[in-house]
Amino acid sequence: MTFYSANRIPYGMVGGGRNALIGSVHRLAANLDGNFELVAGALSSEPERAKASAADLGLSPDRAYATYEDMAKAESARPDGIRAVVICTPNHVHAGPAKAFLEAGIHVICDKPLTATLEDAEELNEAVKASGKVFVLTHNYTGYPMVREARSRVRSGELGEIRVVHVEYPQDWLAKPLENTDHKQADWRTDPARSGPGGCVADIGTHAFHLARFVSGLRVARLAAELSSFVPGRVLDDNVQVMLKFENGASGMLWASQVAPGHENGLRLRIYGERSGLEWTQADPNYLWVSELGQPRKLITRGGHGSGSESARYIRVPAGHPEGYLEAFATIYTEAAAAVRASDSGEPAPRELLQPGIDDGLEGMRFIYACLESSKRNSAWVGLER
Amino acid sequence: MTFYSANRIPYGMVGGGRNALIGSVHRLAANLDGNFELVAGALSSEPERAKASAADLGLSPDRAYATYEDMAKAESARPDGIRAVVICTPNHVHAGPAKAFLEAGIHVICDKPLTATLEDAEELNEAVKASGKVFVLTHNYTGYPMVREARSRVRSGELGEIRVVHVEYPQDWLAKPLENTDHKQADWRTDPARSGPGGCVADIGTHAFHLARFVSGLRVARLAAELSSFVPGRVLDDNVQVMLKFENGASGMLWASQVAPGHENGLRLRIYGERSGLEWTQADPNYLWVSELGQPRKLITRGGHGSGSESARYIRVPAGHPEGYLEAFATIYTEAAAAVRASDSGEPAPRELLQPGIDDGLEGMRFIYACLESSKRNSAWVGLER
Amino acid sequence: MTFYSANRIPYGMVGGGRNALIGSVHRLAANLDGNFELVAGALSSEPERAKASAADLGLSPDRAYATYEDMAKAESARPDGIRAVVICTPNHVHAGPAKAFLEAGIHVICDKPLTATLEDAEELNEAVKASGKVFVLTHNYTGYPMVREARSRVRSGELGEIRVVHVEYPQDWLAKPLENTDHKQADWRTDPARSGPGGCVADIGTHAFHLARFVSGLRVARLAAELSSFVPGRVLDDNVQVMLKFENGASGMLWASQVAPGHENGLRLRIYGERSGLEWTQADPNYLWVSELGQPRKLITRGGHGSGSESARYIRVPAGHPEGYLEAFATIYTEAAAAVRASDSGEPAPRELLQPGIDDGLEGMRFIYACLESSKRNSAWVGLER
Amino acid sequence: MTFYSANRIPYGMVGGGRNALIGSVHRLAANLDGNFELVAGALSSEPERAKASAADLGLSPDRAYATYEDMAKAESARPDGIRAVVICTPNHVHAGPAKAFLEAGIHVICDKPLTATLEDAEELNEAVKASGKVFVLTHNYTGYPMVREARSRVRSGELGEIRVVHVEYPQDWLAKPLENTDHKQADWRTDPARSGPGGCVADIGTHAFHLARFVSGLRVARLAAELSSFVPGRVLDDNVQVMLKFENGASGMLWASQVAPGHENGLRLRIYGERSGLEWTQADPNYLWVSELGQPRKLITRGGHGSGSESARYIRVPAGHPEGYLEAFATIYTEAAAAVRASDSGEPAPRELLQPGIDDGLEGMRFIYACLESSKRNSAWVGLER
Repeated sequence: MTFYSANRIPYGMVGGGRNALIGSVHRLAANLDGNFELVAGALSSEPERAKASAADLGLSPDRAYATYEDMAKAESARPDGIRAVVICTPNHVHAGPAKAFLEAGIHVICDKPLTATLEDAEELNEAVKASGKVFVLTHNYTGYPMVREARSRVRSGELGEIRVVHVEYPQDWLAKPLENTDHKQADWRTDPARSGPGGCVADIGTHAFHLARFVSGLRVARLAAELSSFVPGRVLDDNVQVMLKFENGASGMLWASQVAPGHENGLRLRIYGERSGLEWTQADPNYLWVSELGQPRKLITRGGHGSGSESARYIRVPAGHPEGYLEAFATIYTEAAAAVRASDSGEPAPRELLQPGIDDGLEGMRFIYACLESSKRNSAWVGLER
Repeated sequence: MTFYSANRIPYGMVGGGRNALIGSVHRLAANLDGNFELVAGALSSEPERAKASAADLGLSPDRAYATYEDMAKAESARPDGIRAVVICTPNHVHAGPAKAFLEAGIHVICDKPLTATLEDAEELNEAVKASGKVFVLTHNYTGYPMVREARSRVRSGELGEIRVVHVEYPQDWLAKPLENTDHKQADWRTDPARSGPGGCVADIGTHAFHLARFVSGLRVARLAAELSSFVPGRVLDDNVQVMLKFENGASGMLWASQVAPGHENGLRLRIYGERSGLEWTQADPNYLWVSELGQPRKLITRGGHGSGSESARYIRVPAGHPEGYLEAFATIYTEAAAAVRASDSGEPAPRELLQPGIDDGLEGMRFIYACLESSKRNSAWVGLER
Repeated sequence: MTFYSANRIPYGMVGGGRNALIGSVHRLAANLDGNFELVAGALSSEPERAKASAADLGLSPDRAYATYEDMAKAESARPDGIRAVVICTPNHVHAGPAKAFLEAGIHVICDKPLTATLEDAEELNEAVKASGKVFVLTHNYTGYPMVREARSRVRSGELGEIRVVHVEYPQDWLAKPLENTDHKQADWRTDPARSGPGGCVADIGTHAFHLARFVSGLRVARLAAELSSFVPGRVLDDNVQVMLKFENGASGMLWASQVAPGHENGLRLRIYGERSGLEWTQADPNYLWVSELGQPRKLITRGGHGSGSESARYIRVPAGHPEGYLEAFATIYTEAAAAVRASDSGEPAPRELLQPGIDDGLEGMRFIYACLESSKRNSAWVGLER
Repeated sequence: MTFYSANRIPYGMVGGGRNALIGSVHRLAANLDGNFELVAGALSSEPERAKASAADLGLSPDRAYATYEDMAKAESARPDGIRAVVICTPNHVHAGPAKAFLEAGIHVICDKPLTATLEDAEELNEAVKASGKVFVLTHNYTGYPMVREARSRVRSGELGEIRVVHVEYPQDWLAKPLENTDHKQADWRTDPARSGPGGCVADIGTHAFHLARFVSGLRVARLAAELSSFVPGRVLDDNVQVMLKFENGASGMLWASQVAPGHENGLRLRIYGERSGLEWTQADPNYLWVSELGQPRKLITRGGHGSGSESARYIRVPAGHPEGYLEAFATIYTEAAAAVRASDSGEPAPRELLQPGIDDGLEGMRFIYACLESSKRNSAWVGLER
C-alpha cells in the first residue's frame, strides 16, 4: 500500500461536529496517509453548531451545510465537489444520508453498525448495489496488521480445520447509568430511537462478530444468545453472551459487555484449529500469539520475524515501533481511497483490498436481529440467514 | 494455618501406583506441610504392580494390599491403622472404595469428579452423611491463596452485586486422538466406562464450575450447554461451552476444552460486579487483578500490599516468592488434616476451613448431568437441582 | 493540543528519498495532525534519485532540488516558500543544512543525534541561538503520552527524591555484520565518517539518555562507560553500558545495544523515588506502571483512570484504543508547528511545549563524547559539562 | 530425581526458631520431597525461645539444645544422631556452627552469604575441604527448573559465544528505615556486626551474581561497582550497581537494590549470545523466553513443548501447573540428600548434582569484597581473584 499520497480525494462529512468523539477520529484516520482532504460538511443537526464546527476545521463557509440533503445536492453540482462522504452520525441517521449521497453519485464511508434497523439496512443494501458506488463500513479493527496476519494464517491452512472460535469485547463505561447524566454518547447509544433495538450487541457486538468472521473466514450457521440490561432503568442490552455454531461445525462463544469493570476496549479473538491456535488482543495490537500443537508458543510482532508478507503491506513503521488504532483505521481509509480511485477510473477494485462493505454491514444487522430473537425466545438457536 | 506439624496422620492410598501421575501429586501435597504420612496402599488393581509400587514408596509389605476391600478391613482392625485414605483412581472406582472406608470408620480424601455417575454420587452422598466421617474432594485450585483472596473480596461486598461471571479451562493435550496410542491417561479419560458419561465436562469442566461457585458464592440456577467431540472417533465430549444463569440474576459463560492448542491448564476466572471486577489465572496464580470502577487496575500479589488478612493464612513464603500448584493442593490437605483432627477429637471442624466436600462433589455431578441434558436437548436451558 | 488543522505549514525535506526509512516516518508524522504540508525537497544526494523521489511525492518539479543549498536559497526567495525544513540525512549531513536553512530564515526540524561531531554541534548551537529560529530535534519517544504522564508525576513530587534511574535501549538488528551486506542503514550507521565517533551510543544511546533526562528532570553529573564492538570487524561500538551519577545524588544505569537477540526497539525506563516508582516500555507505550510504596502496583492506561490532565492534552483517541509510534512522533511535529506559528507571529512560544531542541541536542553530543572518553580511560568517571 | 523418599535423613537446625522467617522455609523445603526429617535443634540464641520453638516443632526435649556446640557434641555421640545440620542464622553465625558440625562429622547445609567476612569464608573453606563432608549453600534460585533449562541451553552452545549478561535483583522492603522500628529482619541485615561489611550486595547481590554465573557458566574477570546507602542513617549499602567484564570478553551489568518501589523479589536474568538470547524472571519462574536471531520469540514453559530433558528431572507436576519457590528450594535439598547419601555410602556424588557449595560461597564473598573495594576506589575495575 502507498501510505503517502499527494493526490488527496476531496470528501465531506455528515456528523462529527464539535465534541463529537468519533468525527475527530475519522478525520485523523482519513488524513493520516494523505489520501483524503476534508472540504465540506453537514457537521451537526444544530445549524449554529454545524457552522462553528466547520469554521474550526477551516472549511469554506459555502461548503458548511445545514443539512446532508443540501450537501449532497450542492456538492454533486460542483465541478470540484466531494468524491466521497463520511457518515458518522448516530445509527438512525446512517441510511438516509447514505442513500442521498449514493444517489448523488458520491461514494460513501459509513460508521457501524450499518443502520438502526434491519429494514433500513436492506433498503440501503439495494441502494448501494444499484448505485455502483463504493460503500465502506468502518469496522476499523480489521485494519490492524496483526489481524490481517491472523487472517492470512487461517487462509493458508496452517491451523487446519477450525474447531473453536472465541471473541469478546468487554467495556466498562456504561457500568453506571451514565445516560442519566449529561453524557451525549451514553445518551444516544442507550436510546432505541437512535441506536435501534440493539444496544451493546449493536455497538460493539457487531465489531466482535465481524472480527471473528473476517479472520476465521467462517460463516455462522446459527446462534443462541442471552441479552441483559444490568443497569436499572436501561432499555437496551448492556451485556450479551452468545453461543455460535459455524457452518463448518466449529463452536464458538461471543461476549460483549459495557458493564465489565476494568475493560476499556477489550476486544480479543482466539481461534483454535486442528493444528494450531491464534490469539490477538486489541489493546496490544502489535502482537499475535501463535500456538502450534507440540511447539512452544510464539509471539509474532508486527513486521517482526515470522510476520508474513501479506500483513507487511499494512505496516508503516519498523518492527518494535508500535502502531495503534489510528493506523488501523487509516488502513481502512487508504483501502477506501484505492477503491474510490479505481471506481472513478472505471477500473475494477484491486483484488487485495479488504475493507468491509455493505455485505458485512447487512450481515452485522442480521447478527443483531438474530441475537434479539434468540434472546426473546429463551436463547433458542436461531439461524443466520445468508 | 500451621504449615509444619510433627504429628503426621497415617494414611493410605487407593490407586496412585507406578507411573500414575496424580498419585505422586497427592503424595507430595499430603507431605508438604508435614500433616500426613503414607503407611498403607492398594496402589494398583494389578497385584504385581501394587506390590512394586508399595516397595518404591517404602511401605511395609504387610500394608501393601491387593484390594481396597482388604485394606479397609485390615487397617480398621489395626491399632495403628490409617486414619484417612486418599482415593486417586479413575472415576468409576471412587464410590466403591469411598463407601468401604467410610464404613470402616476411615476419613476419605477423594479425587474429582466425585464419581462416574450421578447415581453413584447420590449413594455416596448418603454414605458420607451417614458415616459422620470427613470427606474431602480435591478441587485443588481452590487452595490457591489468591483464589481465596478473590473469594474474600467478593464476600466483603467490595464488588457490589455480581453481574457477569466468566470461567474457562482450556487444554490442548487431547487435540489429537491420543487415546489410540498407548497413553494411559488419555485412555481412561475418554472411555465412558471409566469416566462416566461426561468427558471434558467432567474432567475439567467441574473444576471450572466449582471455582466459579467457590469464589462468587453464587449458585447457578440454570444452564444451556453445547458439548462437542471434535476428534474423530472420540465418544466423550472434548469441548464444552455453557451459558450460565445464576440465582441472583448474573449471567455467565463457562468454556472447557481439551482441544485448544496453546493451552496447558488455562483455568481462568473473571468476575464483574457493580463496582469492581476480579481476574485470576491459574498459570500465574500469585496475581489477582482488581479493577475498581473509576480507578486504575491494581495487580495484587500473593501476600503483597493489598493482599488481605484472610488469604494471608494460606501463605507459606514471602511476597515475591511464588507459590504453585503443590502448595495450593497442600492447603486442601492441611485443611483436611484439621478436619480429621477435629473429627477424631469429637470437636466441630474449625469454621475457617474451606476445603471442598461431598456437597461440592454432588453439585459437580449435577452440573455434568445438566450439561449433558441441555446439550442433548439442543442447548435448552436446564435447571440445576439443589 | 489541536490535532487537526486546516492551516498547513509548507515545509521541505533534506534527505528522505526513495527507500529512506526514516523519511517516510517523518512525512507521516508531519502529516498526521494536518499541520504541515510537504512542498519542496532535496531528497537525495544522487540527482536522479532526488528527482524521482520528488515525483513520487507529488512535488512540483521546480521544487525538487539537487542540493540543500539550492533549496535554501530558492525557497527563501519565494513568497510561498517553505517555512520549515526537515533534515533526515545521516548524522554528518545535519549541521551543514541546518545552518544553511537557519541563515535563510527557515525553521529547522532535525533528526537525532544532533550532528556527527561535538565540534559541529557547538557551531550549530551558536547558529541556532544567533538565528532566533525554531530548532526541533526529533527525540520522538518523548512524545508518547505516558512518557509525559511519567514526567508530570515526577514533577509533581509524587515520587519524592529520586534515588535510582534505569534506562535501556536494546536492539538486535546489528547482531550480525549486516554492514557487509548491501544494507544501506547498517552501512552508514556503522561508518564513523558518516555517523561520527559513536555508534550504538549515538544512534540509540542518546535516545535513552534523553528519555531519562526528560522524565526525571535530573541532570547527569558524571558517568562511567564501557563501549564494546562485539561484531568482528565493526569499528564503532555496538553495545554500551554506563553507570550514571545524577546531580541530586541518584544512581543510574544505561544500557544500549544493537546485538541483543530478541529486542526490536526495547527502550524502557524505570525511575525509583523515595515514595514511588515508575516503569514505561516503548513497545507497550499505552501503559505506565506506578508503584507507590506500601500499595499494590497500578497499571495506568493512556487516558484511562488515573491518567492525569497533563498527559491528556497529547491524546487523540479514547482510552483502550492504543496509540503508537507515529502519534508520538506527530506530537513532536505538532509542538513544532505551534512553535513555528508563534515565532512567525512574533509571539513567545507557548509555555506548555515540550519538544526537544538545540540544548537537548548539544547535551546528547556531550553524553556521547563523555561515554567515549570514559571508555577509553578504562571506564573512569567523566563529568558531563553543562 | 526421586521426589518422594521413605528414607528420611535426620537433621538438626541452628537458628530458625519462632518467627524466624527463613527457618520455616528451610523446613518446608527439606520436607517437601520427603528426604529429611527434623529431629534436633538449637533454634535460638535465647534459651527459652529455643525450647519453645522446639516444642512447637515436636522435637524431643532432649534434642532441643541451648547452643550449637552442645548440639554438635551430643548429636555426634548418639547412634541415631543427625546426619546433617541446617544453618539459618544471621551471617556472622555461619562459620562457627559450620565448622563445629563439620568437625563433628555432620554434613552442613548453610544459608547464604557464606559468612560475614572473607576471612571467615576462607577459614570455612579450609574446614570444608579438610572434613570431606558435604557442604551445601542454599542459593535456592538455581533450583528452578527453568533456570536449569537456561543453563542447559547455554551449555549446549545454542546461544553461541555470550556477549552480554544482565542480572538484577531489586526489592523495596528497605526503602524506609525499617531498622529503626522493631523489625528483626531489617535490624540484623542492616547491621555490619551481624551481616558483615556488605548490605544489599551481600544479601541479594550474591544471589544475582551466583545466578548469572550458574546459568552463563562464565567467570567474572573484573568488576566496577558503586554502592549507595540511600536511606538516611543506614550504614550498609542498600543499592548496588556493577559493571562486569567476563573472562570470555562478555560485558555485563548487575543491579541489586532494597529501595526500588514496586519490586518484591525482582530477580531477573538476561543472557545474549551471538545467536540467541534468554530471559528468566523469578516472580514468573515457570517461563523462559528464548529469542533466536531471525525467529519469533518463544515462550518455553516448565515441562512444556521445547522444555528440554535436562530440566525435566527437576519437575514435579505437569506443564501448566506452576511450581514455585519452595519447589526450587526443595530441589537444592533433594540434591543435598543425594550428596549426603552418596557420601555416607562412601560413593562419589552423582555427577548430575548441581547444588551450590563451598566454592560458590567463597566466590560470592570475593564478589562482595571486590564490589566494596571498587566502590571505595571510585568504581575502579577490580579483578575477581580465582
